[in-house]
Amino acid sequence: MTAIIVAGVQYHALCNPVIFLDNKQMNFITFPEPQLRSFTEQVFLKMGCSEADATLAADVLLRSDLRGIDSHGVARLVGYVRLWEKGRINATPNIRVVHETPTTATVDGDAGLGLVVAPFAMKLAIEKAKIYGSGWVSVKNSNHFGIAGYHSLLATEHDMIGISMTNASPLVAPTYANERLLGTNPMCYAFPAGKYPPVVVDMATSAAANGKLEIAQRAGKAIPEGWAQDKDGRPSTDPNQLKAGGSLLPLGGDKDHGSHKGFGLSATVDILSAVLSGANYGPWVPPFVAFMEPSANPVGEGIGHFFGAMRIDGFRPADDFKHHLDNWIETFRNARPVDPAQRVIIPGEPETAFEQERAINGIPLIDAVVNDLNELATKLGVAALG
Amino acid sequence: MTAIIVAGVQYHALCNPVIFLDNKQMNFITFPEPQLRSFTEQVFLKMGCSEADATLAADVLLRSDLRGIDSHGVARLVGYVRLWEKGRINATPNIRVVHETPTTATVDGDAGLGLVVAPFAMKLAIEKAKIYGSGWVSVKNSNHFGIAGYHSLLATEHDMIGISMTNASPLVAPTYANERLLGTNPMCYAFPAGKYPPVVVDMATSAAANGKLEIAQRAGKAIPEGWAQDKDGRPSTDPNQLKAGGSLLPLGGDKDHGSHKGFGLSATVDILSAVLSGANYGPWVPPFVAFMEPSANPVGEGIGHFFGAMRIDGFRPADDFKHHLDNWIETFRNARPVDPAQRVIIPGEPETAFEQERAINGIPLIDAVVNDLNELATKLGVAALG
Repeated sequence: MTAIIVAGVQYHALCNPVIFLDNKQMNFITFPEPQLRSFTEQVFLKMGCSEADATLAADVLLRSDLRGIDSHGVARLVGYVRLWEKGRINATPNIRVVHETPTTATVDGDAGLGLVVAPFAMKLAIEKAKIYGSGWVSVKNSNHFGIAGYHSLLATEHDMIGISMTNASPLVAPTYANERLLGTNPMCYAFPAGKYPPVVVDMATSAAANGKLEIAQRAGKAIPEGWAQDKDGRPSTDPNQLKAGGSLLPLGGDKDHGSHKGFGLSATVDILSAVLSGANYGPWVPPFVAFMEPSANPVGEGIGHFFGAMRIDGFRPADDFKHHLDNWIETFRNARPVDPAQRVIIPGEPETAFEQERAINGIPLIDAVVNDLNELATKLGVAALG
Repeated sequence: MTAIIVAGVQYHALCNPVIFLDNKQMNFITFPEPQLRSFTEQVFLKMGCSEADATLAADVLLRSDLRGIDSHGVARLVGYVRLWEKGRINATPNIRVVHETPTTATVDGDAGLGLVVAPFAMKLAIEKAKIYGSGWVSVKNSNHFGIAGYHSLLATEHDMIGISMTNASPLVAPTYANERLLGTNPMCYAFPAGKYPPVVVDMATSAAANGKLEIAQRAGKAIPEGWAQDKDGRPSTDPNQLKAGGSLLPLGGDKDHGSHKGFGLSATVDILSAVLSGANYGPWVPPFVAFMEPSANPVGEGIGHFFGAMRIDGFRPADDFKHHLDNWIETFRNARPVDPAQRVIIPGEPETAFEQERAINGIPLIDAVVNDLNELATKLGVAALG
């Protein structure tokens, strides 16, 4: 389960605590996508979401599972419900524009599901781009928005370039610091191609995601240097150090390897998402987990996101762009490989491969996740997954 | 010369072949900034640039020297002249908008100095942002534009967020490849603060810049793992391997350490700068050096840049943003350090420290650069630096 092969190319599993596990005793149960989608919609409806919101929120989560990013899919459904139970997610938000120019806006998510707030904001950016060429929306008072790629891809459907980012609970120490001040703060750029799927750069700005440490922890394996430091700020290859007061590290790992760049990218995400919108930034970003309380002295509202959409034909005819992006893709795919068995992977290609495979063969969930979801079903009065 | 101390904080030298050198036998000659500026203007005038263009191009180069990024300052003046001599830089370009919407545009640089083309494009983005909230300009048919930070900072002077990026001659191999397909492709984001200088994230998307390898090479020192690979695609700590057919590596270094993210960022720069504008991308980007010929079968025109400007008050009142960015800066500066002697450095802070120090004390150049400039002076009939 750690990799799939499509058309002769091996795709390694993504940032994915489920399929990364090499534990052969782990039991997977595979569900057809429509079954999980329907289940997820039912849960959101039970939370009090509108039909439209439940459908949309389920679509974001299921797209994550389909694209092989299981860490951000239905495995997180229980987390959203717990935050709603704590009153930290508003199932019936009044999402609204609170500040605006022709091509910019700030959206107040009213503590709604990020899964619903984010598409609202991206669609606003797209509508502005339709009229003026580009649209840019910063969001405050939101929650976890799922995978960044979902939102960027909304723009590519309109022959636009899509940009999305979000800040997140602090786990990452800036270069030289021994303090968690930044989230894994992902940024995503999506570009529509011609005969190929979109190029989607969707990446945490940390060296590695938390989920990868959890996997190493369960497997009792060391992690590469540069992923984490211990509570004293020393580089560590022990995955247990994060939970023992350590920190994740920015992309680059240490100063010699460019961690100030990862820090700079993460700072960019934090500033565009939160300092610009009026959300919480840095250490004030509220935790995604219900068992940790948000700051008693917040500097803003909720977490922040940032979205952009630019019409391709605002720069050159869309067909010209797509023709050249196809050529770009072919050039990079066909680059001379170091190892003939592993060619260059275009950003977004693994997700597309998973999406095609799982749409047909279903979505595998580990039994622990299935048990969680069935407990949730019982509690909310929804039919169990079985 | 490898670091300066301002207000008790030590700033390590930037990506900077001059001041990085630990060679004590290297002679530095320090010039007052106005003298170097006047000299540089004279050289551009001798190339046939207009007064305005010569002043602007010199301003871009001198700002780089002031900001401590000597690799992109007057040390490159000879390189621009050589490309002009080869007919690859047009000293009197007709820089023009060839495609446009209210907030987007493509600019044809007419093979002009990137030092002149880039400010033209950024100013266009700023003018669009004044009216519509944001402006975005992709550029083709340009040349090396100096430091990205110069252009982004033009926007911060108008209480806007400034974004700039450029592609560059191929030196970097994508993850899994043994072929140079990408430049060091920098991206830069600049944010205006209140009582502090702007936050400026200005970074190559490769693990390290070429200049750093040259320094290690001259010093006979090994480079960290993750910066380069040899001609067979094997990781190498030998700085000589780049010139022996090897490649630089993307930020992250290898897959385990996130090099696919550095590749994704570099790809983003390449696509926004060149696939979007109609410039050359990937392996077709023309070399900055005159002794290497551009591709005989280009896929576009010249090299490409991308610029963006967004009005802060398109999202929230500028004073609110600046107040919170000041708080962000203070929070990160005051983070608990790993080593009490080295606090967190805010992106852009070293450049500001150099700029303040060098405006007073002058700009140190190594004697080899001074000799080059004096030879140039003789050839062009300009008064030598002395």
